[in-house]
Amino acid sequence: MCQNCLVKTIHSVHNHFGWDRSIEPVMRVAPGQMLEFQCLDSSNGYFTPQSVVGDVATMSFDQINPVTGPIYVEGAEPGDILKITIDSFKPSGFGWTANIPGFGLLADQFKDPALALWHYDKASLAPAAFGQFAKVPLKPFAGTIGLAPAEAGLHSVVPPRRVGGNLDIRDLAAGTTLYLPVEVAGALLSIGDTHAAQGDGEVGGTAIESAMDVVVQVDLIKDTPLAMPRFSTPGPVTRHLDSAGYEAFTGIGPDLMEAARQAVSNTIDWLCREHKMPAEQAYMLCSVCGDLRISEIVDLPNWVVSFYFPKVVFA
Amino acid sequence: MCQNCLVKTIHSVHNHFGWDRSIEPVMRVAPGQMLEFQCLDSSNGYFTPQSVVGDVATMSFDQINPVTGPIYVEGAEPGDILKITIDSFKPSGFGWTANIPGFGLLADQFKDPALALWHYDKASLAPAAFGQFAKVPLKPFAGTIGLAPAEAGLHSVVPPRRVGGNLDIRDLAAGTTLYLPVEVAGALLSIGDTHAAQGDGEVGGTAIESAMDVVVQVDLIKDTPLAMPRFSTPGPVTRHLDSAGYEAFTGIGPDLMEAARQAVSNTIDWLCREHKMPAEQAYMLCSVCGDLRISEIVDLPNWVVSFYFPKVVFA
Repeated sequence: MCQNCLVKTIHSVHNHFGWDRSIEPVMRVAPGQMLEFQCLDSSNGYFTPQSVVGDVATMSFDQINPVTGPIYVEGAEPGDILKITIDSFKPSGFGWTANIPGFGLLADQFKDPALALWHYDKASLAPAAFGQFAKVPLKPFAGTIGLAPAEAGLHSVVPPRRVGGNLDIRDLAAGTTLYLPVEVAGALLSIGDTHAAQGDGEVGGTAIESAMDVVVQVDLIKDTPLAMPRFSTPGPVTRHLDSAGYEAFTGIGPDLMEAARQAVSNTIDWLCREHKMPAEQAYMLCSVCGDLRISEIVDLPNWVVSFYFPKVVFA
Repeated sequence: MCQNCLVKTIHSVHNHFGWDRSIEPVMRVAPGQMLEFQCLDSSNGYFTPQSVVGDVATMSFDQINPVTGPIYVEGAEPGDILKITIDSFKPSGFGWTANIPGFGLLADQFKDPALALWHYDKASLAPAAFGQFAKVPLKPFAGTIGLAPAEAGLHSVVPPRRVGGNLDIRDLAAGTTLYLPVEVAGALLSIGDTHAAQGDGEVGGTAIESAMDVVVQVDLIKDTPLAMPRFSTPGPVTRHLDSAGYEAFTGIGPDLMEAARQAVSNTIDWLCREHKMPAEQAYMLCSVCGDLRISEIVDLPNWVVSFYFPKVVFA
């Protein structure tokens, strides 16, 4: 019998806000253990199927992005790697996407709150309707998987860092293995911020934010240097999006950030013009399905950033 | 009979260096015309199957990136869009990749010249051997497709700009449609810098540089604003690379350029350690098959850039 195959559950009541090496672990486990993290959504349950756009303005920022944990992995020490094999997701079927004023790649252009609510089939994970505008393919993943940093004190959950955290990497989906550098004894793993879908970049600042249970296996790689998080995918990563090809828009110039902003802005202009979408709806749609890629980063002094919008959402 | 289906050929002897609205067109064509551009490689034939690494140092920079053209499209005026439907490529079967000192994303770390020569099957386009290290899937495209800028004078071919040029977008492959804003009467289209394969970013500064003939159809969209180049792909764009999944490495921080550099540097470290590759070989391999993606660009103050290295090259 496989003792590690007995999945241990960490209930969402065991959540915390921000990273702090002094937070008491909720469980101690041996390497090889399977764990189910019950994750709240990034609004800590604030948004519900009854929410309206006015609720965006009154959202409390000290309640954002709770993570479930931390888990103490026996034997983990600074200089080791925590290997996290992402097994599966049990999505809740409800999600939200918002424009939160002051937050997002085009915050200067989108100053008014916006809110979209999603109801998706948690069994089939069929593409989810975005109003009457589009159907978005789903690919659940955990936006935040992280360890406690070595530096004492409370660290904001918002920025990702060397020990992971709010990475928002769309491909941290089922089957992917994530490797994180351990900075404190026990590693102190927490997971949260689950998403039903997101494009590379998460350009609007939110994905399809959705509570989910996440099953992972934790393993330890002793005494192995790792500069920054890395991950390994078992197969293709964009097949849910790519079948009909892409409409792609470029930004060109000497600053990658400005080029990325141009590329997304040009995509939104096209969505408004060709698909008769209000701009804030187009922006939210871009955030949940469009991908930011760096096409070239060497042809001095101008770089090309391209935003790939998948045609399949209009199929 | 389809008059436009008679492909007109522009021989590579009609090439020019840099963009200049005063360069005399080599041909005047009507919208709808099919054109075959015979393109030199970006070294203007300097590198041959007999080349050695010492030749990199003596390469002449005033001979780089010749483009074939320009073509005057009847009726094209500033404010129009030139629509370029990329039909097909006839690759030459020979290519080169180099580390050119002073050029490339990690120029500060790779100061010595390096050179790789490629011999690939131009009929089957089977994955091409990179020494004994890897086999790289091929996907021919034109690195440079551009129009003459409105501003008078000679403009360097190196940086891409609003009217296109050295975009180095890997997906400007057969079947893709590229839209460029016209800035001068006749548009003045030229094409060159053909590549047998490249990753998003072209991180080392060169792709599999390879002479090819390129067949395109030109069309005109009158009086339509276009801020920056855009393109539309007829289907998936990474299926030649994605079947075995990816090893991905992150860079995290407040500067996208520095994050991109970290991500590529971390990939090279892994290739050296796990695949016993000399660093400059790893760097060149990254340039021809690895993809730079912006995973998140909103979690203040740190962004995540990920470099996706396709496992299929080691299959």
